[in-house]
Amino acid sequence: MSLFAQILDFIGTFAFAISGIRLASAKRFDWFGAYVVGFVTAIGGGTLRDLLLDVTPGWMTNPIYLICTGLALLWVILFGKYLIHLNNTFFLFDSIGLALFTVVGASKTLALGYPAWVAVIMGSITGAAGGVIRDVFINEIPLIFRKEIYAMACVAGGIVYTVCSRLGMHELGCQLVGGLTVFATRILAVKYNICLPVLNDKERKR
Amino acid sequence: MSLFAQILDFIGTFAFAISGIRLASAKRFDWFGAYVVGFVTAIGGGTLRDLLLDVTPGWMTNPIYLICTGLALLWVILFGKYLIHLNNTFFLFDSIGLALFTVVGASKTLALGYPAWVAVIMGSITGAAGGVIRDVFINEIPLIFRKEIYAMACVAGGIVYTVCSRLGMHELGCQLVGGLTVFATRILAVKYNICLPVLNDKERKR
Amino acid sequence: MSLFAQILDFIGTFAFAISGIRLASAKRFDWFGAYVVGFVTAIGGGTLRDLLLDVTPGWMTNPIYLICTGLALLWVILFGKYLIHLNNTFFLFDSIGLALFTVVGASKTLALGYPAWVAVIMGSITGAAGGVIRDVFINEIPLIFRKEIYAMACVAGGIVYTVCSRLGMHELGCQLVGGLTVFATRILAVKYNICLPVLNDKERKR
Repeated sequence: MSLFAQILDFIGTFAFAISGIRLASAKRFDWFGAYVVGFVTAIGGGTLRDLLLDVTPGWMTNPIYLICTGLALLWVILFGKYLIHLNNTFFLFDSIGLALFTVVGASKTLALGYPAWVAVIMGSITGAAGGVIRDVFINEIPLIFRKEIYAMACVAGGIVYTVCSRLGMHELGCQLVGGLTVFATRILAVKYNICLPVLNDKERKR
Repeated sequence: MSLFAQILDFIGTFAFAISGIRLASAKRFDWFGAYVVGFVTAIGGGTLRDLLLDVTPGWMTNPIYLICTGLALLWVILFGKYLIHLNNTFFLFDSIGLALFTVVGASKTLALGYPAWVAVIMGSITGAAGGVIRDVFINEIPLIFRKEIYAMACVAGGIVYTVCSRLGMHELGCQLVGGLTVFATRILAVKYNICLPVLNDKERKR
Repeated sequence: MSLFAQILDFIGTFAFAISGIRLASAKRFDWFGAYVVGFVTAIGGGTLRDLLLDVTPGWMTNPIYLICTGLALLWVILFGKYLIHLNNTFFLFDSIGLALFTVVGASKTLALGYPAWVAVIMGSITGAAGGVIRDVFINEIPLIFRKEIYAMACVAGGIVYTVCSRLGMHELGCQLVGGLTVFATRILAVKYNICLPVLNDKERKR
């Protein structure tokens, strides 16, 4: 990864870890529990992708994700009460992370020789699955299944990235266009409160 | 797979996806959430099996499962309110899927050289684990742990399949006898309301 | 494994399975559900570790874990109402299992050539992840994220084991010192009611 991509990766990991740690703290987890939830939120998507692609999960080859999660925990412990004023900043960081994780996931999948539609799914898993595991751990229905154009932003960005790549565009260009698609979709969806329709078949739970 | 097995596979996938999508709709998931829950219900068991056996998950090699789940979602969106009249049909389809998934899982495991008891477990995982992941996602205690002879039908069918295979019966014969065992066990258990005993050690939760 | 390690492994597996089966029985699971939860509690940590390390999960190569879980289920069915008087014994057995699983996990990881910090994490996953999956299955927030110095005992023992190993100490010595660290940390933490601080950032759940 280039230095620029590494910095974005660090920012994204930090933002994802913060989101896990804050939700854990709302459920009164102890420091260890909050750390684990933060870590899993940050690396869960990439880990599931790497298990499916049968390669070694990225966090097992570089301790930076452990350290980054530790800094995120320290940040919440020290400045927890001021965090609420930074919600917009974290929303921005979170969207940067989502964009980068998605294109990195799609790129890795194409590089391993999988077809384009697998790359789109793997990009989305990389971006969104960490949040699903986080919500399972805090015993809530995963947020992305009910609210927000979150995973759909990954799907859109993954498709754009893959199409650009198949059209022979330079790797960096594909990543930029794909990532911006994720970023813009998410920002616009939240700004204009765009949601997917809710499914309701009027039937009681079996 | 033969054409006949492919048709059964499609029917089973469709029925499993419908079961996931309907439970998701009861929890007011949006279209994306319902699609993901339907997809995971259909392919979750096979994916866990393939991760444990260290082979590439089947759905990553053929987009048919994605398409089939899409059709299932479309079906629920369009005909949701009539679905309740089709409950018996879906129960039948679901049991066909359970039977096929179980024998396919056991067969794949034996073909990879694992012992018979691993094949029985992998058959059961293929049939039943998708529903467990579905229930975790909708934040309910997995149904198969509390009600219905569902997974036990897989265990029974897996044992019959494996014994037939070890006795040298032709592959197609094993699959037929094993699958029919799953199918008949499930149908009879529901018809005569046969349940496993509930465990109760009179102790409070720790 | 030496005969001594095998006996400890059996005791640990039995204790972990009992813990899963008892929590399942408190939620009125049927025999099958209780068996599955017991089994997953016992082998879940090692299975996740082996998936991450890309080796075949231990329980797929030896049916002893299936049998051990079956004996644990039989024990709870037959003697369930007396189990409450054995809580201290089971706490001891559970701590033995935790200690052994942790050092086995760390040892396996180092043997595969991974760095020391990965070994510490894998030791902790081996010891503690089974209980997390158990709690997800019974639809509770994982206990280790909120109470008890449980996983921290694994981390401490994993660090001690890895340091000893890196210092060139004999394998058996490392395992003994590492295992005793886990065991002593857990026993002392419960005896003196030592907990980690709870995180609370005064913010409402998003």
